Amino acid sequence: MTQAGPAPDPDQREREAQLTETVLASFAGTPDGRLRELVTALTRHLHAFAREVRLTEPEWQAAIAFLTDTGHLTDDRRQEFILLSDVLGLSMQTITINHAAAGPVTESTVLGPFFVPDAPRLPDGGDLARGAPGEPCWVTGSVRDEAGNPVPGALLEVWEADEDGRYDVQYDDRRLAARGRLTAGPDGEFRFWALTPTPYPIPDDGPVGRLLAATGRSPMRAPHLHFMVSAGGFRTLVTHIFVAGDDLASDSVFGIRQSLVKPFERQPPGAPTPDGRAVAGSWTRVRFDIVLAAD
Amino acid sequence: MTQAGPAPDPDQREREAQLTETVLASFAGTPDGRLRELVTALTRHLHAFAREVRLTEPEWQAAIAFLTDTGHLTDDRRQEFILLSDVLGLSMQTITINHAAAGPVTESTVLGPFFVPDAPRLPDGGDLARGAPGEPCWVTGSVRDEAGNPVPGALLEVWEADEDGRYDVQYDDRRLAARGRLTAGPDGEFRFWALTPTPYPIPDDGPVGRLLAATGRSPMRAPHLHFMVSAGGFRTLVTHIFVAGDDLASDSVFGIRQSLVKPFERQPPGAPTPDGRAVAGSWTRVRFDIVLAAD
Repeated sequence: MTQAGPAPDPDQREREAQLTETVLASFAGTPDGRLRELVTALTRHLHAFAREVRLTEPEWQAAIAFLTDTGHLTDDRRQEFILLSDVLGLSMQTITINHAAAGPVTESTVLGPFFVPDAPRLPDGGDLARGAPGEPCWVTGSVRDEAGNPVPGALLEVWEADEDGRYDVQYDDRRLAARGRLTAGPDGEFRFWALTPTPYPIPDDGPVGRLLAATGRSPMRAPHLHFMVSAGGFRTLVTHIFVAGDDLASDSVFGIRQSLVKPFERQPPGAPTPDGRAVAGSWTRVRFDIVLAAD
Repeated sequence: MTQAGPAPDPDQREREAQLTETVLASFAGTPDGRLRELVTALTRHLHAFAREVRLTEPEWQAAIAFLTDTGHLTDDRRQEFILLSDVLGLSMQTITINHAAAGPVTESTVLGPFFVPDAPRLPDGGDLARGAPGEPCWVTGSVRDEAGNPVPGALLEVWEADEDGRYDVQYDDRRLAARGRLTAGPDGEFRFWALTPTPYPIPDDGPVGRLLAATGRSPMRAPHLHFMVSAGGFRTLVTHIFVAGDDLASDSVFGIRQSLVKPFERQPPGAPTPDGRAVAGSWTRVRFDIVLAAD
């Protein structure tokens, strides 16, 4: 990195402030009031950043090159801009702003870049692994409203990495695995086989990985299982559950909420499974009771 | 645009502030002090923006999609991120920060996305148009240091749009036109034929154009001729000259400096040219005396 630009004298400060005002004025005619608010606030903060750090021209060029690389790496299977937002905590901040902690409602966390719509349907008690490697995990839970009433038919979309830390979209053969959708029963209950979550790095072979390396940060995510839960009349919930006892200190995307940390109870090899499934080695079980907010 | 998110109560404000602190703390181990300063300031301003405007999730998604589109449109011939920086005034602010107005030194302005290194060499008095359509313009000037001494051999790289408002890199056939490089003579003087600059829109068929349209802004640039001037021992100057008398009110990239506005004197058809060149219609002449800052 180069040195910061020179510190400004009052004339120079005025010249810079005047430029910011000129740019703000250019947005004064924005017909949509909300868009006007967004672009003017963005302009103010962006200029304030540049002026505060005395951004140099090589640094500006590096930023353009960084965004260009980020754009070129992004496609329908890899969303490097979401990853960038995630590691800067912007994704989690946006979620925090829009999902205030409210009574019993299940807390939200980041979507991440690996959600795929229209994942395969899973029968009640089905296995979402579809051959992805990992320790089996029996997941049960319920979907309820804030008053404790079941939400029958709530749609649960669930996805996770395999034990090698890879999501199916990172497989070469593009098969679907370790993801599925199922519905809560008439009593709001659900159950399915998944994989015990394991730690994995976010994709770190691109610009975001280089940023983490340059800033001495770990790319590792705390182990977790993703849920998106939706039902008519309720706000769609995007969240994970995390594994109690694992290292939760440094989640690279700042996604952890204590209320989402659940015990995954490990069962020894040979322990009978709830549905009689034959499991060769150990397996785990976890329960996740979900409360949706009214829409 | 959607409505802003809910206004925060003190608990919620604390929760949001705490998240920002967690992200800032994650950068504390950045080995390079300047990089640490940049990423922490960026994080603070980015989070402050999101919290101030109560950024909604659809707005966050729209921002991700905007950046993705911007990345996908960017290639070796089209730099949509530079264009975005330009229309937000960030490019000009960076230049303003790094090139304080200093005595006689020629002011800088934006590079723009159309510079191409290694443009064709031009002899003294040569024509950079290379067949690009437009009214001929005889450009003379000098390159001097702050004490007024000539800078012999200074390299001038010059480029511009044709009368249809297109740079050569926007031509389908990728030929080089309306750009060239030449050197100042032993007396620091230079002369060449160019085209009288005309107004043109910045490329507005992409995300940046959609942003301008949505905010009621014009994509037009004030007519100008680009210069990059370099010589050993001097800071490289990136600038334009603008045409006095043209509409300078709304340059879409905020590049205008009054000191760079020059009279382009129109000569009637048939007026003798300085070098005897036969010109069918009218032509213009302009002089640009350049002062470089010591490095």
